[in-house]
Amino acid sequence: MRFDIVTLFPDCFTSVLSSGLLGKALAKQIAQVNLVNPRDFTTDKHRKVDDEPYGGGVGMLMKPEPIFTAVESLPTLPRREVILMSPQGQTINQPLLRELATNYDQLVVICGHYEGVDERVLHLVTREVSLGDFILTGGEIPAMALINGVVRLLPGTVAKTESLTAESFEEGLLDYPQYTRPANFRGWKVPDVLLSGNHAAIARWRYEQQLKKTSDRRPDLLKEWERR
Amino acid sequence: MRFDIVTLFPDCFTSVLSSGLLGKALAKQIAQVNLVNPRDFTTDKHRKVDDEPYGGGVGMLMKPEPIFTAVESLPTLPRREVILMSPQGQTINQPLLRELATNYDQLVVICGHYEGVDERVLHLVTREVSLGDFILTGGEIPAMALINGVVRLLPGTVAKTESLTAESFEEGLLDYPQYTRPANFRGWKVPDVLLSGNHAAIARWRYEQQLKKTSDRRPDLLKEWERR
Repeated sequence: MRFDIVTLFPDCFTSVLSSGLLGKALAKQIAQVNLVNPRDFTTDKHRKVDDEPYGGGVGMLMKPEPIFTAVESLPTLPRREVILMSPQGQTINQPLLRELATNYDQLVVICGHYEGVDERVLHLVTREVSLGDFILTGGEIPAMALINGVVRLLPGTVAKTESLTAESFEEGLLDYPQYTRPANFRGWKVPDVLLSGNHAAIARWRYEQQLKKTSDRRPDLLKEWERR
Repeated sequence: MRFDIVTLFPDCFTSVLSSGLLGKALAKQIAQVNLVNPRDFTTDKHRKVDDEPYGGGVGMLMKPEPIFTAVESLPTLPRREVILMSPQGQTINQPLLRELATNYDQLVVICGHYEGVDERVLHLVTREVSLGDFILTGGEIPAMALINGVVRLLPGTVAKTESLTAESFEEGLLDYPQYTRPANFRGWKVPDVLLSGNHAAIARWRYEQQLKKTSDRRPDLLKEWERR
């Protein structure tokens, strides 16, 4: 999988791309990340990437040309999606990450900044994606979430594929409580059933806990799960 | 505002904390971010922070002691929240960010990793927060989103406070389309009304666009907005 990240702040990505599981996946060339800065595609003396909104309003917008030229400078792989990270987009969820991980060879990810981007950038874009119903200072952290979530699903990143399927959201329920050593920590004990060695009882307990947690905290998810 | 980030990957935060608006806000001491690594609080020779789950299962869990000891090493400010970033938590949205920005002096943010954390860590935690219904390799990127979204709302970070209120989600609707120079870009023109100088007509057009976009893309938000 090839990612091309269009961002005014490429430095922002340095540490995230080199640490943890994502760093390892990139080192193993499971994915490549290329950073491209629209500022490098400006033609004026001041290398201007933003300007005031027509019709008035506070703040600055990202101009269309430098983004178009930056994206047009990139190679084009066969199965390619051009994504704008925007609070107006489709909210990231596990099925969307799986779709992107499965159906594409190249994801071009445009990070908005300032008050937003000129609407005509949408002529370049095949999909708008949102991290959620809240506002950040730019699209960089949302882009990192997208990359991390997609790369995690590519074959070879996570050692055992079981740990991809037996987890929250893949099956539509929240996770069950998990415990590790010590069995007694400051007087708080691990539930007896988990120490019993009775696999059927453990599986049953975990399933009940998933249903209970999802029902308590996310009745919306439970309702969707029951409809399936 | 003081943030204490409990993470096995403190290096991951370096570039995000030094670039863009967040970097500037930290330089102006509008907020401080302290990184603390549970691995520095292990007492065994191998500095072990993870172990196998009781009852079987794939992957490793974060052990409770190093997290407890790390959090207990921190100073305690009066209005303090201890947050675990977890897909099981309350989903981040704009009201939650505003509440955190307004009501607290210190946010301790615990980043999960591997398959998750020992359930007993919840005895330490006052709130579980989720970035959304999807899985990442760890809580680091979700923590970055939380910090960015909260710091952005602190007085002094964003120059004009108008740009905080006149935007998506603060008023419950998606944003209207925005345009900047040039007026004609590759044949795509800025809507005439925005060039008219008629402020009442511009305000009306923008409001209609907000309603239309929200209705087309996020009928759930529109329904909530109408109920207010």
